[in-house]
Amino acid sequence: MNAEAYDAARPPGGGTAGEVLTRYLHERATAFLRGLSLRGGNETEADRLLRGSARRIGGVLHIYGTLTDAGWAEPLRVELGWLSTTLGREPRYVSRLDRLLGALRRLSVTVEEQEAVTVGGAPPPAPAGGPLALGAARAGALLERQLTLARTRAHSASLQAVGSSRFHALADAIAVLASEVPLTPAAAGPAATVMPPMAAQAYARLADAAAALPLHRAAHPYNADAVQASLGADLTADLQDAPWHQVRVLLRLSRYAAEVSRPEGDAADRQRLADAALLLERHREAAESAAAVATAARTPRIAPATAYALGVLHADQRHEVEAARFAFSRLWQPAVPKPRAR
Amino acid sequence: MNAEAYDAARPPGGGTAGEVLTRYLHERATAFLRGLSLRGGNETEADRLLRGSARRIGGVLHIYGTLTDAGWAEPLRVELGWLSTTLGREPRYVSRLDRLLGALRRLSVTVEEQEAVTVGGAPPPAPAGGPLALGAARAGALLERQLTLARTRAHSASLQAVGSSRFHALADAIAVLASEVPLTPAAAGPAATVMPPMAAQAYARLADAAAALPLHRAAHPYNADAVQASLGADLTADLQDAPWHQVRVLLRLSRYAAEVSRPEGDAADRQRLADAALLLERHREAAESAAAVATAARTPRIAPATAYALGVLHADQRHEVEAARFAFSRLWQPAVPKPRAR
Repeated sequence: MNAEAYDAARPPGGGTAGEVLTRYLHERATAFLRGLSLRGGNETEADRLLRGSARRIGGVLHIYGTLTDAGWAEPLRVELGWLSTTLGREPRYVSRLDRLLGALRRLSVTVEEQEAVTVGGAPPPAPAGGPLALGAARAGALLERQLTLARTRAHSASLQAVGSSRFHALADAIAVLASEVPLTPAAAGPAATVMPPMAAQAYARLADAAAALPLHRAAHPYNADAVQASLGADLTADLQDAPWHQVRVLLRLSRYAAEVSRPEGDAADRQRLADAALLLERHREAAESAAAVATAARTPRIAPATAYALGVLHADQRHEVEAARFAFSRLWQPAVPKPRAR
Repeated sequence: MNAEAYDAARPPGGGTAGEVLTRYLHERATAFLRGLSLRGGNETEADRLLRGSARRIGGVLHIYGTLTDAGWAEPLRVELGWLSTTLGREPRYVSRLDRLLGALRRLSVTVEEQEAVTVGGAPPPAPAGGPLALGAARAGALLERQLTLARTRAHSASLQAVGSSRFHALADAIAVLASEVPLTPAAAGPAATVMPPMAAQAYARLADAAAALPLHRAAHPYNADAVQASLGADLTADLQDAPWHQVRVLLRLSRYAAEVSRPEGDAADRQRLADAALLLERHREAAESAAAVATAARTPRIAPATAYALGVLHADQRHEVEAARFAFSRLWQPAVPKPRAR
C-alpha cells in the first residue's frame, strides 16, 4: 500500500496549493467511494479502503488545515476519525489473536520441534505434553474465546456503523469532496511555496516527539525497560507506552503530508518513514496484545497452569515491545554507539 | 579474586614443569588449609576458600594430568569435586533468592517509582497495589519459603560434609599436597616447554566448544531463542542451555591453566576470559533461577495471580539467559555485524 500511495502522489510543484490538495483529496475520496461499493462483496478489502481513505483525508485536512475552511473541515475530521476507529477494531482483534497464538506456539516448542525449526522447513508445531504445556493450550483456548467474542462484537459494530445515518451523511460529505473542496484564500498560493512549510511543521512535530523518547536507553538491547511494567499497575505500561504511540501517530501524519507534497524528497527518506511506521505498529500490536493477556489473566477461576502460561506470554509480549523500541531506536538514530551488555 | 589469583601466578618460565605445578598446588593447598582453620568463625569466607581451592586443585590436576601420578590424582579429583559441589549449594540458593526477589521488585515497579528510579537515587521499591502486584508479593513469599528451605538443607549438608570422615581424609590428602606432589617423569622437563601445550589444549577445547555455540544467532538481540523454552518441557531448556554451561566449565579450566603457566600471556586476554566467565556465570544463574520458578509454579493449590506472576518471572529470567548469551557472543566474536531487528 505504501508504494502505491507514493506512486500516486503528485510531484511537489505544479499549480496552486489548492489544486494539489484538491487532486489528492479527490483521489482519496474516489478510493473511499470504491470501498463503499465493495461492501457486501469483499468486506475486508472494502473496509481497508474505507479506513485508509478516511485516515488519509482526515490527516491531510489536519496538516494542511489553513488551506481549507475550518468550519467544514473540523466536523468532517471528527466523523472520519469515528469511522476509521470503528472499522479498525475488528482487524485489530484478528491480528492480536494471530500474534498471541503464534507466540504461544513458539513458547511451547519442544526439543524435537526446536531442532526441526532450526533445520528449517518444518510446519508450525502444536503445543506438546507437560503440565505447563497444558497451561499453554488452555491459555490459547481462553484467549481465542475472549478475542473471538470481541471480534464478533466489533464486526457487528462495523456493520451497524456502515448501516447508520451517521455513515450515510459522512459518505455524502465525501462524495461532495470528490467534486469540490472548500478552500481558503491561502490555497491560491503556489503549492511549491505554500505546502512544504506545512509538511515540514508536521515533520518537526514528529522529530521533536521522537527526540523526547528514551532512544539512547532503548538502543541498548535487553535493557528490560518495557517488561518492568509486567507486574505493575496497567497504568505503568500505559504511561510508558504513550509517548511511543504518539510518535506512531505523528509518523503517520508525516507520511501523509509527504504523499501530498513530498517536502522531504527522496526515496530513502520515504522508506525510512515507512520502516519506522512498521516498527511502531509492531510496538502497538505487542503492547495491546500484552494488555489483552493481562485482561485474560483476570478471568475468575482459571487454573494456575493457565495463569502461569498467561504470565509467560505477557512478559514475552512486553519483550516484543522492547524489541520494537530497540529496532526503532536503531533506525531513528543510527549514530548510537555499539550495543553494550547491561 | 581474579586479580589476586593472577598476581599470585608464576611467570611462565623458571624451573621444571614439576616445580611450577608444585608451587601452584602448594599455594592452593595452603589456601585450603587456611579455609579449614577459618571454619567456626567466618564460615562464608571459609567455604569460599575451601571451594575455590578445591576447584583450582582439581582443575589443574586435570589440565596438567600427565605431570602427576594418575592413580593418586584421579581419586583426589573426585573428592575435590564432591566437596566443591556440596559447599557450593548454599551460596547458590542465597544468590538465586536474591536474584528472583530483585527481579520481582523490578517487575512490580509502579509509575511513581519508575520515575523515581529514572531520576536515580531512590531506594528499591516494594511491590505496590493491584491484583497482579498481589500475585507478585505472593510469588515472592512462595519462592522465599522454598529457597530458604533448600538453603537450610544445603547448609546442614555442608556442615555434615565438613564433619565427615570423608572430608577429614580429603583434608589429610591436601595437607600432604602442601608438602609433596607425586610427579611423573614428564614433570622433569622445563616448564616453558612442557606446560604451554597443555594449557593450549585446554584453550583449544574451550575455543571449539564456544565455536559450536549458536553465537551468530545469539549476537542478534531479541532473537527470543532462550524464552522459547519457557512453556516447553524442562528438557527443552536443559538441552538448549547445556552447551553454554559446558563452555562455562571449559572457560574456568582455561583460566586455571593460565594461572599456573600463563600460556596466553597478556592482561587483555586474561581480562577477556574473566569477563566471559562472569557472563556465563550470569547465564547459569538466570537459567537455574528460571528453573526454580518453574518448580515453584508446580506447587499445588497456588492462586492464579501467584502463578501468573511466576510465569512473568520465569519469562523474565529466560530473557536474562538470552541477554547473557548476547553479551557473551559480542565479547567472544566481536567481528559480528551490527545487530539487526528481527
